[in-house]
Amino acid sequence: MLNYTITSLFYNLKVEGGDLMSHQVIIWQNNERKELMATEGQNLFELLLENDISLDTPCGGQGNCGKCKVRVLSAHPSLTSQEEKLLSDKEVEAGVRLACLVTVTEDMELEVEDKVELDILTEGISQEVDLDSEIRKVIFEITQPNLDDQSDFMTRVQDKTATEQITLKALQQLDQVDKEGTLTATINEKTKELIGIEAGEKEELYGVAVDIGTTTVVLYLIDLTTGEEVDTYSFHNPQKAFGADVISRVNYTLGDQEKVQKLQDVLIKKLNEGILSLADKTEIETDDILTMTLVGNTIMIHTLTGVSAGSIAKAPYTPIFTQGAELDPVQLGLKINSAGIVKLVPSISGYVGSDIVGDMLAVDFNSFADSWNLVIDIGTNGEMVLGNQDEIYACATAAGPAFEGAKIMFGVAGIPGAISKYEIMDNGEIEYQTIEDQPAKGICGSGLLDIVAELLTAGFLNSRGAFCKDEELESWQQERMTEYKGFKSYIVLTADEAGIEEDILVTQKDIREIQLAKGSIAAGIEVLLKEADIDYEMLDNLYLAGGFGNYLDPHNACVINLLPQEVEDKIIQIGNGAGIGAKMYLIDQKMKSSAEQLQKKVNYIELSSSSHFQTEFMNSMEF
Amino acid sequence: MLNYTITSLFYNLKVEGGDLMSHQVIIWQNNERKELMATEGQNLFELLLENDISLDTPCGGQGNCGKCKVRVLSAHPSLTSQEEKLLSDKEVEAGVRLACLVTVTEDMELEVEDKVELDILTEGISQEVDLDSEIRKVIFEITQPNLDDQSDFMTRVQDKTATEQITLKALQQLDQVDKEGTLTATINEKTKELIGIEAGEKEELYGVAVDIGTTTVVLYLIDLTTGEEVDTYSFHNPQKAFGADVISRVNYTLGDQEKVQKLQDVLIKKLNEGILSLADKTEIETDDILTMTLVGNTIMIHTLTGVSAGSIAKAPYTPIFTQGAELDPVQLGLKINSAGIVKLVPSISGYVGSDIVGDMLAVDFNSFADSWNLVIDIGTNGEMVLGNQDEIYACATAAGPAFEGAKIMFGVAGIPGAISKYEIMDNGEIEYQTIEDQPAKGICGSGLLDIVAELLTAGFLNSRGAFCKDEELESWQQERMTEYKGFKSYIVLTADEAGIEEDILVTQKDIREIQLAKGSIAAGIEVLLKEADIDYEMLDNLYLAGGFGNYLDPHNACVINLLPQEVEDKIIQIGNGAGIGAKMYLIDQKMKSSAEQLQKKVNYIELSSSSHFQTEFMNSMEF
Repeated sequence: MLNYTITSLFYNLKVEGGDLMSHQVIIWQNNERKELMATEGQNLFELLLENDISLDTPCGGQGNCGKCKVRVLSAHPSLTSQEEKLLSDKEVEAGVRLACLVTVTEDMELEVEDKVELDILTEGISQEVDLDSEIRKVIFEITQPNLDDQSDFMTRVQDKTATEQITLKALQQLDQVDKEGTLTATINEKTKELIGIEAGEKEELYGVAVDIGTTTVVLYLIDLTTGEEVDTYSFHNPQKAFGADVISRVNYTLGDQEKVQKLQDVLIKKLNEGILSLADKTEIETDDILTMTLVGNTIMIHTLTGVSAGSIAKAPYTPIFTQGAELDPVQLGLKINSAGIVKLVPSISGYVGSDIVGDMLAVDFNSFADSWNLVIDIGTNGEMVLGNQDEIYACATAAGPAFEGAKIMFGVAGIPGAISKYEIMDNGEIEYQTIEDQPAKGICGSGLLDIVAELLTAGFLNSRGAFCKDEELESWQQERMTEYKGFKSYIVLTADEAGIEEDILVTQKDIREIQLAKGSIAAGIEVLLKEADIDYEMLDNLYLAGGFGNYLDPHNACVINLLPQEVEDKIIQIGNGAGIGAKMYLIDQKMKSSAEQLQKKVNYIELSSSSHFQTEFMNSMEF
Repeated sequence: MLNYTITSLFYNLKVEGGDLMSHQVIIWQNNERKELMATEGQNLFELLLENDISLDTPCGGQGNCGKCKVRVLSAHPSLTSQEEKLLSDKEVEAGVRLACLVTVTEDMELEVEDKVELDILTEGISQEVDLDSEIRKVIFEITQPNLDDQSDFMTRVQDKTATEQITLKALQQLDQVDKEGTLTATINEKTKELIGIEAGEKEELYGVAVDIGTTTVVLYLIDLTTGEEVDTYSFHNPQKAFGADVISRVNYTLGDQEKVQKLQDVLIKKLNEGILSLADKTEIETDDILTMTLVGNTIMIHTLTGVSAGSIAKAPYTPIFTQGAELDPVQLGLKINSAGIVKLVPSISGYVGSDIVGDMLAVDFNSFADSWNLVIDIGTNGEMVLGNQDEIYACATAAGPAFEGAKIMFGVAGIPGAISKYEIMDNGEIEYQTIEDQPAKGICGSGLLDIVAELLTAGFLNSRGAFCKDEELESWQQERMTEYKGFKSYIVLTADEAGIEEDILVTQKDIREIQLAKGSIAAGIEVLLKEADIDYEMLDNLYLAGGFGNYLDPHNACVINLLPQEVEDKIIQIGNGAGIGAKMYLIDQKMKSSAEQLQKKVNYIELSSSSHFQTEFMNSMEF
């Protein structure tokens, strides 16, 4: 059935003798009409992707996740067996289809879900850092030479700026500026290089810190003369079209350098859009942006540099690099000042990336002395670091994206309308919150956690994660149970309660997904504590980083045994630690050695080959 | 009369309503036929230039030098008054015209002088230098990681290569090579940067040293694993089309950044042709060329970098830079390995360039201890440096290009057929040599020097440089005198003696040009000795660098008082010292600090404001 491949995206289909027949496809999204032309037999998902109409697609268009729904307004295409499995009867009847399973064979008109903005976490704890960037501006006065002092212009500028080297661009700028009066030099204090010169006083100096998440990317524009954050910009990682999780994306690229390049290109393009947008909005020149720092998981950082991450996906899971490289923005294609520096924050291993190093900088891990602290970043995977000043242990658990709404039947990301808080009152009534108080659209990570905790507390679920038999439930409880696609399911909200078209459910299958996810995180924690040979009492703090970690209810996290109950009062939610670390790395050049110090101290524990982890994992799946 | 400007070269002439009428212009050169299309009214010189048919043109197409001769085979264009002055009657009759004064108004057919190769000096004294380039190749073995040693690939490569940084290109190459077996890394030992990685043993490593002369450019391909010169490549400086001397070229660019760019572009283009040709011929990859060093006079080095040299042409003659910058080949557009380094050798001042620093390295100026030595480089100008280990004095004299054949009626560059040696025997007979024993075509610098010395010795000229009156000459002498374009002239070779079409002469005007040239050099020497407060006896050696300096007869140079007679036995001809210095700078990274040491020690004496120089100059014009 899946007889197309995503690669055909990049061809223009031609047949001998002329162009293929083409069809008009009319798209409605956000009440706007778009007209596309498709070639006969083109895959609808590919057509939308080509035209920048990006659908949510955890599986990358493989026909497995059931998320790339479109509603066909013209004649309904025949149904595939896969669609029968993944769509409700009501949906099928209304013309809903999965774009990745639709082939265009005639003119079509369809409705695509409105574009919604994720509520992306950009804030968090704050750390004091020195305002100490190696890129600086130096403002000085210069006078004309004369026959007694014929020293060349560059010598006189170098004397004023304590530089010894120069870029070609700066050399040409030296030529262009007035040779007397006030000048502003941009210098790299570390390499003693003069990288720019302008007439007058031009103290503007900016940097951009970036957190490249698998799902979302956040840019922070920082004024490097004050250290203040000027503005932020975030976008969905455009690589999502090639797979929701990093492994799907790696698999997509395997053995094809052009696809590695493709992943790089889409990301660089969006980063440049972000840079330009920030510059526009704050009325600064992109030439005044001299530094960029980037954190991300190791696979994101590999794809950012156009380096294939294939070796990370198979044993022994070795990345090509983990170093904190400093790269040329021009070579990378990033549109900041061409003499600027793009700094990759060092990472730990293939599955503990520089985002986690960012978290560690954000909590000032190097200051911990004798006390033991644990940092956990729950995103698509769960990475964690346990340590004190002498020893650090890290591991990554393949928690999967369940807490990001993927693989959960009614799961959604943190979009407006996502159920983010949920409580079953003693009287059986339901209280809930959605993001931005919009009509409920589905369940996001923190809502899911609440629901499971409440189902456990209220006795819907047993400790093994199975829904109780009907006879074990009270009648009000029985009313909230139903069956959905063959799975016993809890009705989170009835259509009536929520004022929506269909009930929102949590199925037995969803519960299993959550068990796998939380089990692997809990098991990772156990393994780290055992490696460090400490118990929970010796733990000072448990820092939770990342969007889900920030919004979850710590008590409920302990109720479902995602986190050990012993540490409930030691939990500190730090927000987007990775982004905070990236900002610190941007502002203070000393963060490089701090990060390298951490990097060297870390013992990475490979869980895939750890029998201890397997055992713990089995135990931790229970609630 | 001169109603065109050279700028119109860069337009496509258009008239409203359509293209201008065009004419076919057939060119014969080296027995080959070329067909060009000219627009109505186009200047012939510009047309030829556009089509890479470069004529000798000291004045840059201003109609002053009379060198851009072509022979019109079709209907002869009417004669301009300027051509009447600059061409002989015989030439006019034969259809010879000056291309820069011809406007194309109809189809034409013409003959252009055959392209001849200059005999460019590439050799000279040799100095021992260490084989010590910061760019190196490191060959090493690597093994696959395993679950016990998951260290990333870059870490394992860095361990083997003692590097700490990496370029984006090298990072992407790391991704591509096999991860076990023998690998070859290219590293920059100084910056500890990994700049390339290849599979297998690839020890090839090359550099190119370049001497950018005003007239000619020489490239030396050096094997950096042995220090040996592999091959050389030389070409006429394509900037000649914009003026023979540096000042004409600066004047051409004044106030127009696009013209600065143009001078850069033509030079970079030819340098790339040279690099590609050297690589082709010696069957190496341009990617194996990792370093380039360049010397040249300060104006050449400015134009090479696209920096205007306007400030050098007017008081206080201050260049934009004199530093030994290290630039990015990609930014400069030079086609060596993109991670390579382009090193500009430091220069002294606006008129004492890095070519002279090259000469100083070639004679190992830093080793002179207490002894005083003088280095003179006679090219288009005469630059000289006098010093010992403690003090160095330098100056530049505007000798002009007389010794390069320019401004001399029958002067030519060092081409085959140039009279390079000349002697008047006691019996009045003439002995002479031409380059490559070709039929005489004109007189080059060393020949001119011989002729003037012989004319003085044989009593044709008095010490003031005037030809003696007829009555003061013997009858055989009178036979060799004639008048040419209003000037008393000496017949160097009659057409009969040389088996050529026309007599070759030296006119009174030519003698005046030589007096100016040699006078300024001699005066420069006097000024330097006075600054250093030493006399000729205290001079150990007088090193003569450059083509003319290499080929001239030292005795005759003293006869005409170009060089002081007291030092005749101290003269050492070192050949192309500038090129040798560039090669040393390429091979041994320590030459940078040697050069900077010299640069700092030099006291530059500005002659234009020196009354002492003016007096000496007046005195030194006499023979």
